[in-house]
Amino acid sequence: MERPIIHSKVIFKNDLKDLVLDPSSSFLIYDCDLLKHSPQFKSWQKKFRFQYSVKAGEDLKDLKYFESHLKSILKISKGLDTRRMSFVIIGGGSVGDFGGFVSSIFKRGVALIHVPSTWLAAIDSSHGGKTALNIDKAKNQIGSFYSAEKIYIVKQLLKTQAEARAHEAFGELIKIALIDGGTWIKNLASNYASDKALTGNLKSAIQAKYKIVKKDPFEKSGTRQLLNLGHTWGHVLESSLGLPHGTAVSMGLYFSVEWSLRRGLLTPREYLHIQSFLECLETEKVPKLNSQRVYDLLLQDKKSEGKANLSFIFLKGIGKPIRLRVSVQEVLNEAKRQGWLNL
Amino acid sequence: MERPIIHSKVIFKNDLKDLVLDPSSSFLIYDCDLLKHSPQFKSWQKKFRFQYSVKAGEDLKDLKYFESHLKSILKISKGLDTRRMSFVIIGGGSVGDFGGFVSSIFKRGVALIHVPSTWLAAIDSSHGGKTALNIDKAKNQIGSFYSAEKIYIVKQLLKTQAEARAHEAFGELIKIALIDGGTWIKNLASNYASDKALTGNLKSAIQAKYKIVKKDPFEKSGTRQLLNLGHTWGHVLESSLGLPHGTAVSMGLYFSVEWSLRRGLLTPREYLHIQSFLECLETEKVPKLNSQRVYDLLLQDKKSEGKANLSFIFLKGIGKPIRLRVSVQEVLNEAKRQGWLNL
Repeated sequence: MERPIIHSKVIFKNDLKDLVLDPSSSFLIYDCDLLKHSPQFKSWQKKFRFQYSVKAGEDLKDLKYFESHLKSILKISKGLDTRRMSFVIIGGGSVGDFGGFVSSIFKRGVALIHVPSTWLAAIDSSHGGKTALNIDKAKNQIGSFYSAEKIYIVKQLLKTQAEARAHEAFGELIKIALIDGGTWIKNLASNYASDKALTGNLKSAIQAKYKIVKKDPFEKSGTRQLLNLGHTWGHVLESSLGLPHGTAVSMGLYFSVEWSLRRGLLTPREYLHIQSFLECLETEKVPKLNSQRVYDLLLQDKKSEGKANLSFIFLKGIGKPIRLRVSVQEVLNEAKRQGWLNL
Repeated sequence: MERPIIHSKVIFKNDLKDLVLDPSSSFLIYDCDLLKHSPQFKSWQKKFRFQYSVKAGEDLKDLKYFESHLKSILKISKGLDTRRMSFVIIGGGSVGDFGGFVSSIFKRGVALIHVPSTWLAAIDSSHGGKTALNIDKAKNQIGSFYSAEKIYIVKQLLKTQAEARAHEAFGELIKIALIDGGTWIKNLASNYASDKALTGNLKSAIQAKYKIVKKDPFEKSGTRQLLNLGHTWGHVLESSLGLPHGTAVSMGLYFSVEWSLRRGLLTPREYLHIQSFLECLETEKVPKLNSQRVYDLLLQDKKSEGKANLSFIFLKGIGKPIRLRVSVQEVLNEAKRQGWLNL
């Protein structure tokens, strides 16, 4: 298939055994926890000779360990026809970011298939081709735009995850619904925070994401940045408090919506309507943050526009995200106003 | 500019000072030797606040040191608007491979400008977007296809290099002339091994390369592999003997042409005609190689098609390269026949 691929082929399957993968050309990279939590996965993976298991989490994305991972992968790949091979990445967000990046640079890029094992990855991170590694604690400092040829969404696999992990996906689900503004946001409201909200809205959420990605696949015009609603503040919380991505994004959504009201972009009526969607996210109180640390993290943000400015996504209503340039100081002031900072 | 770029804008300049580069958005990565060999470069680079000097050579491309390089680059880049920045890579092949790779993954890809400082880079490696790093001694195991937006070919810079380095470029020059088969190969013959051969044929050589790259930019159909004429054997010599790339390729060309005769792809008359071009390369006798080491290196070759086969480029005449599948054992047999192996 010719590069670049923008819209991956998304295929829904009930069971792992329905996947069409050739063991002689597939190289599995998977979350080792799947062996513990999914007996079906454990027996299914045995037919693959070329495989590498990883421990999910931000450490997997740390550049520090990248050389060691690559050496292992290179060694295991001996005997594979690298011109016809595919990496098959089975896991959540961090495994997808890591495996996608490996695929994009291994022998200058080989075919990539994603099999998301978390709702967060199924709804959001496996789509759109963003791959990344972290440098020290700074997230996603290097990476690539490299979409999967195929994404298999396998119900059996998604059902194995713990409820807490499933809950983390609501943040991204509500985020994309707020950005898209399609009629499906009503389904979301009526099936609140249940498994049904995820299964019933998965296709709509995925379509909504590709609608935006297709307009700006390499994040050049700025349109794609709209998907970062809730993420600028979310990344600060993820990096400084080690919160799971989904939880951090949920809190980031609150932050953006509050600020949008304060800036007069939302009427109080719209604000209350949006708040009704956010309520299910059940975000907890968190410790106060150090201002200097927050300042440094905001500067490292890859959307940073030099010394003092960055792009921040506000909401002017459901389906009306807007990107505005703000100073890092303004974000700090707002964080202070919202009671996040320890002064 | 939207990705992917396939054909870089190639701009010829006499002096460094003619380059149109904004110091507030340019990040220089350059070969530190230029400070010693080019007083013009030394004074010119002073106007750039964002800069990182590297030592050219294969160690620069070693994945082992990549984390440390990236941390330094990330640190220096603070204060740059990463959405509008360009990496400006000034050096030869290894600096270009390294800097091109950094550009392709830094913040998921930023603009890239090449300023080749060696004839080898000006003729060949800066064009076509191949970037790469090595893993241990295995060359180009990871990398990307990432073409420069602009390539400045600056006469002043090229003239500073030592004659031996200029001579290394003849291998690639003759290679592309043999592949292209255009009338310009006659100029080459008449200006043999002089500076004029390089300056006088630079444009033709570059055009010939883009003609092939455009047909198969991501090396999917196989057409682009034709540019590897002389490289399969060349890489073995480069890895095992530490020869400069150009010298290794020259020897690789001999290897391919000899083998093409042996396989009956070339008539003795054509063979002698081609030999007349190769004579200027003045390749030296080298120590005998270890068969097992050669076998391992051939298997690591990124054109390897699994356990025992690889693509090898032969010549059926000037302008008639041909890609054939051969076994690693056949390459070894031919190497033995040509007296390369220590048995």
